[in-house]
Amino acid sequence: MSIRITALRATRPTTSRAKISLAQTSRRAYASAPAPAPRSYGGLVGSAATGFAIALGYTIYHGYNESKQVNCDAAPLVDTVDTYGYPWLPVDAIEKDDPKNPMRIRMANWVKSLQDHIVNTMESIESNSSPNSFSPSPDAPKFLRDTWLRKEGGEGSSCVLAGGRVFEKAGINVSVVHGSLPPRAQKAMLPDHPSLPEPVETVPFFATGLSIVIHPRNPHVPTVHLNYRYFEIEDPKNPNEPKAWWFGGGSDLTPSYLDEEDCAHFHRELKKACDKHDERYWPDFKKACDKYFFITHRGESRGIGGIFFDDLTTSSPINQPPVSTMKHKSKEDLFEFVKDASSAFLPAYVPIVYKHKDRKWTEEERRWQQLRRGRYVEFNLVYDRGTKFGLHTPGARVESILMSLPETARWEYMTPVGSDGTNTPEEELQKVLKNPREWV
Amino acid sequence: MSIRITALRATRPTTSRAKISLAQTSRRAYASAPAPAPRSYGGLVGSAATGFAIALGYTIYHGYNESKQVNCDAAPLVDTVDTYGYPWLPVDAIEKDDPKNPMRIRMANWVKSLQDHIVNTMESIESNSSPNSFSPSPDAPKFLRDTWLRKEGGEGSSCVLAGGRVFEKAGINVSVVHGSLPPRAQKAMLPDHPSLPEPVETVPFFATGLSIVIHPRNPHVPTVHLNYRYFEIEDPKNPNEPKAWWFGGGSDLTPSYLDEEDCAHFHRELKKACDKHDERYWPDFKKACDKYFFITHRGESRGIGGIFFDDLTTSSPINQPPVSTMKHKSKEDLFEFVKDASSAFLPAYVPIVYKHKDRKWTEEERRWQQLRRGRYVEFNLVYDRGTKFGLHTPGARVESILMSLPETARWEYMTPVGSDGTNTPEEELQKVLKNPREWV
Repeated sequence: MSIRITALRATRPTTSRAKISLAQTSRRAYASAPAPAPRSYGGLVGSAATGFAIALGYTIYHGYNESKQVNCDAAPLVDTVDTYGYPWLPVDAIEKDDPKNPMRIRMANWVKSLQDHIVNTMESIESNSSPNSFSPSPDAPKFLRDTWLRKEGGEGSSCVLAGGRVFEKAGINVSVVHGSLPPRAQKAMLPDHPSLPEPVETVPFFATGLSIVIHPRNPHVPTVHLNYRYFEIEDPKNPNEPKAWWFGGGSDLTPSYLDEEDCAHFHRELKKACDKHDERYWPDFKKACDKYFFITHRGESRGIGGIFFDDLTTSSPINQPPVSTMKHKSKEDLFEFVKDASSAFLPAYVPIVYKHKDRKWTEEERRWQQLRRGRYVEFNLVYDRGTKFGLHTPGARVESILMSLPETARWEYMTPVGSDGTNTPEEELQKVLKNPREWV
Repeated sequence: MSIRITALRATRPTTSRAKISLAQTSRRAYASAPAPAPRSYGGLVGSAATGFAIALGYTIYHGYNESKQVNCDAAPLVDTVDTYGYPWLPVDAIEKDDPKNPMRIRMANWVKSLQDHIVNTMESIESNSSPNSFSPSPDAPKFLRDTWLRKEGGEGSSCVLAGGRVFEKAGINVSVVHGSLPPRAQKAMLPDHPSLPEPVETVPFFATGLSIVIHPRNPHVPTVHLNYRYFEIEDPKNPNEPKAWWFGGGSDLTPSYLDEEDCAHFHRELKKACDKHDERYWPDFKKACDKYFFITHRGESRGIGGIFFDDLTTSSPINQPPVSTMKHKSKEDLFEFVKDASSAFLPAYVPIVYKHKDRKWTEEERRWQQLRRGRYVEFNLVYDRGTKFGLHTPGARVESILMSLPETARWEYMTPVGSDGTNTPEEELQKVLKNPREWV
């Protein structure tokens, strides 16, 4: 259960910045086995972004689906990174979750572990499926594991599988970034995050998150999305006591064809995780999900929902004790909720994949799926806050942000599919998208 | 040369609104021949939106490509529309361009005529091409001609061809709309339109335009876009003397593969139309085009440019006489320029289509074209002002706005296509997109 790792802790420099050059980072040792060929990516992150430490060999998580030991082969071997004066601890240097560590380290560690577990689970689904015309090789498809450094501070790991037996395109991303937030950017965040201190000066921030979008090939297997994140506004004088912080996240399902049992199952698993922590969470977060994932110009939801929350902090109204004699929730309580909710992803989704992945489909069903993917693109490019924020942030890693887009999508003018009024399965789905249902 | 048409002029009511119910509009006479089956569209525009007056039989335009007489089969047969108190003249009631008519009528008439001519030209390209696997029928593919009424005032006509022998998806749209513009909306327009009067009250507006996007199937035939529009802020006391007005427009080319001769030809034709009116137009509008059609998050242009202009009015700086003894341009002068520039579309584009439409292509070339179409979707949904404005306008006709999207598009994470550094044709294109060139 211990992590054997060679990364060093960077201690906060007193007068100068801890720096390593790209030349240094690109000298990192690569493990032998299936390391992908180096790829270039826009200037500074360069080839260093492809450094991997493979098969460090520790158990991260005893998880869903009978998975046994999983190897951490997605964790980047970070020696030190340019901290630009900011205290930086490579998260891989932390052997296990230690409540004495600051939350930013604990959460970054959590999302990295979960990323790794989910990547491995998806790969096991691929290897449990037979080769087919989309992936004829006898070797089961694997995720491409890409890690990157951010010039302004931070790192990330993008795990992508394309052209699989089951998954057409799956992206499982972690980012751990920090930098400076000018007052204008803070002001823009205020409406959603009232706990932010009055924006008067540029402040350091930290953000880490796990982001997943999985587009299966079979039109009967729904697309799924997950995002869990943690954000901090730092106090430069006391790096371990942030001035403001919050969790955000959620998960939602986007089928092309409605299977009511699937919808109920997906929602039930998420509800279980919510109810374990607060019975007020589920109704609130389910409603927020329906509200957020709405394609206004189409007058329909992106999918059949799930949960969505933002600005979850100890002072959030939903976290106030219902009775004055009860104790307030702690930051630890919220972290435990985030861990449970994000852990519910696999039990909520994987059974649905197994149930439908080998079903036959028609060309017409595939066409409908492609039209629905067009809607997915519309939502992500027109409304999704994270995507918009990312695309408008200079220096953002566009390839990681747009990984959420499907491999292919389709638009037809006034398509006749699903609109002939004869209660086809396509119309059944649209009815639900126009009038979100309670599933549990 | 005369239009036989039964439409009535709606005169401005003094005390009440001129109204017709949907029941009335749907009772309109439909011409017999190839009218498409009625389709439903979101509520109010309903089946009335599919009304066509086909084959009215007048010559609109002796045009490019040896086209002889063309039939006006796209003109909607408008009896009256709900004017909501606004003076409304069905543009089809105007027999020909008459300088005594207000510009809104003249421009609406122009764009409708040009739409019709371009639709017919594109159909002639289809009928001059052989049936193929994408369109195996011996009957040449035709545009679907959809007309619609806008609840808030106005009408439009969407002509769409899908699954053609040459054109995968082509949309040629006209809209003629009017309504009310609150001060807030006027304020938002001020930076781009300094001639707007001080926004103090809600004012009536009028807008008409022609909008074209053509996505051919062959990866060697470029996608093309055109938009010409006219906007007025009305003076309710004097409907024929608007308080402010301007023209806007342009056209640009988006190849997947670079053919330098094509680029030079396309730009040359547009330059000719510009130079005829003002030698300052071309350099200015070419630069504006490169600036506007830029996908910031990709650091590349959408295509190889063309011309783009907005807020073109007699008081625009570019229209000031270079020598004080010269006379100012009139509104008539600007309309003549708009007519010439928009007329340059067919001579600029059609020869390029004929040059490449029968070229063989590989699966890899098609894949690259699909990736480029993904970029097209990114530009239109993330940056294009018209699309954004449309999608955020309640009651806008989404199907017409999103007609600009390709039939299919593709996204690959860190695609290897065009990025191996060996000067492939894909890389050649990208170089030009990152560094716009002078073509003439």
